[in-house]
Amino acid sequence: MTTPLRLVIAPSGFKESLSAEAVADAIATGVRRVAPTALLDTVPLVDGGEGSARTLAESTGGKLVPVTVTGPVSAPVTAPLALLGGPGPRTAVVEMAAAAGLRLVPADQRDPGRTTTYGVGELIRSALDLGCARILIGCGDSGTCDGGAGALTALGARITGRNGSPLPLGGYALKDATALDTSRLDPRLRDTELIVACNPCNVLTGDCGVATVFGPQKGATPAQVDALAAAMSRWADLLETSSGLDLRLAPGSGASGGLGAGLAGALGAKLRSRFEVLLDQFDLNARISAADLVITAEGTIDAQTVRGKVPGEVARLAKRHHVPVIALAGTIGAGAETTRSAGIDAFSGILATPSTLADAIRDADALLTDATERALRLIMVGTHLTPAAEHADARGLPA
Amino acid sequence: MTTPLRLVIAPSGFKESLSAEAVADAIATGVRRVAPTALLDTVPLVDGGEGSARTLAESTGGKLVPVTVTGPVSAPVTAPLALLGGPGPRTAVVEMAAAAGLRLVPADQRDPGRTTTYGVGELIRSALDLGCARILIGCGDSGTCDGGAGALTALGARITGRNGSPLPLGGYALKDATALDTSRLDPRLRDTELIVACNPCNVLTGDCGVATVFGPQKGATPAQVDALAAAMSRWADLLETSSGLDLRLAPGSGASGGLGAGLAGALGAKLRSRFEVLLDQFDLNARISAADLVITAEGTIDAQTVRGKVPGEVARLAKRHHVPVIALAGTIGAGAETTRSAGIDAFSGILATPSTLADAIRDADALLTDATERALRLIMVGTHLTPAAEHADARGLPA
Repeated sequence: MTTPLRLVIAPSGFKESLSAEAVADAIATGVRRVAPTALLDTVPLVDGGEGSARTLAESTGGKLVPVTVTGPVSAPVTAPLALLGGPGPRTAVVEMAAAAGLRLVPADQRDPGRTTTYGVGELIRSALDLGCARILIGCGDSGTCDGGAGALTALGARITGRNGSPLPLGGYALKDATALDTSRLDPRLRDTELIVACNPCNVLTGDCGVATVFGPQKGATPAQVDALAAAMSRWADLLETSSGLDLRLAPGSGASGGLGAGLAGALGAKLRSRFEVLLDQFDLNARISAADLVITAEGTIDAQTVRGKVPGEVARLAKRHHVPVIALAGTIGAGAETTRSAGIDAFSGILATPSTLADAIRDADALLTDATERALRLIMVGTHLTPAAEHADARGLPA
Repeated sequence: MTTPLRLVIAPSGFKESLSAEAVADAIATGVRRVAPTALLDTVPLVDGGEGSARTLAESTGGKLVPVTVTGPVSAPVTAPLALLGGPGPRTAVVEMAAAAGLRLVPADQRDPGRTTTYGVGELIRSALDLGCARILIGCGDSGTCDGGAGALTALGARITGRNGSPLPLGGYALKDATALDTSRLDPRLRDTELIVACNPCNVLTGDCGVATVFGPQKGATPAQVDALAAAMSRWADLLETSSGLDLRLAPGSGASGGLGAGLAGALGAKLRSRFEVLLDQFDLNARISAADLVITAEGTIDAQTVRGKVPGEVARLAKRHHVPVIALAGTIGAGAETTRSAGIDAFSGILATPSTLADAIRDADALLTDATERALRLIMVGTHLTPAAEHADARGLPA
């Protein structure tokens, strides 16, 4: 009787080249070359941003429904709404980036005070139309800073100014907002669980507020950042009046240009760490605790990896279960060694020869499979070393 | 009581960037980051070619004596003669490439029919002057094809043509050779052990003879290759007449443009596989058999690695002692996976980011240390996997 090696393969995508599923497949192929009898449990993971809806649909055996909605600069865009497979309540994933992502904002129109999340609201309505009782809103890669006001408007909320007339779309207008009327919101929302999967480090207002931290990368000038910061502050006042909730510094309130705050304040959505959402959705605790080894991966492993990125979170979880973790990366960047603090026991790059970034991106799939094989063979060498290592070095290593 | 991990670090140099000692040092630094208590036994290895004298002097605690000799195109060159440290008879290493290497032949004078090994003979004479009882002649990277006639001439041999007058230097002249007189050779040679450390695949004559196989890369045209092949054939006749030895297809007779044949035929030098020489010189059998793990390395790991290169030979030896072997390489080239057949259990490249070859060469030292650390950490992960692996996957792997 033999006990096969049990591996969980839980990578994120490689931003510019491979989806999370493609990464997981490439790793699985490499593993099988070395350990053909190993039991592989693949869990492609996402961070809520671009590609999240597709990845979650595919990895749960669900499907994608294309929906045409209002884009961030009003021109219509077709966004995939994910209907997840599996047990539990009928669940949709709304990927905010698919309706209001920065990539959908033409370079010459990058002013986050004018873009809108209206299409995100339309996607939520489509999910209601499809009978979903649970809607996950994935944040990340947004091109907006409207506090979710556009999304609420699409769902029936009325945001009005001094003279009682509705405000135009976009974050700037919120500085003049005087009332938020939620009485005509789509009534189905009351029986629907809304979960915003976000980075809890993002908050709505203040020195680390969303306008200040993310405004510039979305195209705002310093003056525009100031205007947006004032608008978000005003918006926080209105939300508090409407809901009784002070969302100004609430974890995740600043997610996706303040979308988190809007959905939490007006719709009662729960703001949850995106990784915690994945944890539940994929039953990660149980799956990782049953593994002998976890393999994670991302495009670049560096000092950011431990700050909320998939491999860092996977490693922290695995450490709780005392399961070793290795990470594979397209590129090994500055500070990669800090990942050991999050529990990544070892990592490896995929490059085999001197090459350009473009070549590496083009060949990422094959490079990743080969690199996985090399890493597994090194690990297998270790399995033969135990007697000596057990006495001294391995035990002497920091965990 | 603990038993520290015992590691042998036995790399070759990285041709264009790091000497074998520098490679060994970089690897040792990386190992210590992971396993500070490991016992490291470093054995920088050489292939007989460029840098061999220096490496052997340094790694035995010996010294280098600079000697000015006749270069391959007559202009004088200063070549380092190595005097080895350690027990046993006083031993010198003559690196043929330092006196007659291809690198010493200006591009516009690359005609291997005209270059000479005269300086190699002068180096041997210097070793005799220094009282050496044992002289290793390291072959590789030669720019000559004179059958060692130049070296013998420098040591007192007379090679004459039809009219009894001495022949000019260079391989072409040997086609007119009619006599080899060894009676006036330096008498000290009789009491000296001469060992030619060579690639045994190189032979003096025939379809796989040295003129045919190596002539073109030393700059010979097809017509020049034919002329040299005829000259080597004539030279083999003379050596047989003089010594009674048929060296035409003797293993190593073609080493360094036929230097092996000349030294074996006229001086009684032993032609030995360069790796076998290292084996003895460094007591490799004993050291490797005492190790838990062997780390080897080379600039490029590819299909050539198993054909007489240092990592391939190190791995074969380690396999005889059932010691696992990993290899680190600057670049992973085509056919690298074939190295498993020679016993390299796992290998890893050193590149961390997309980069040019020039960058990789410049940063090779730091890259190698970091890559060693990464590889060791993967191995250490394996030491924690044994229980599961032992039951199934590891044992199922081809050795």
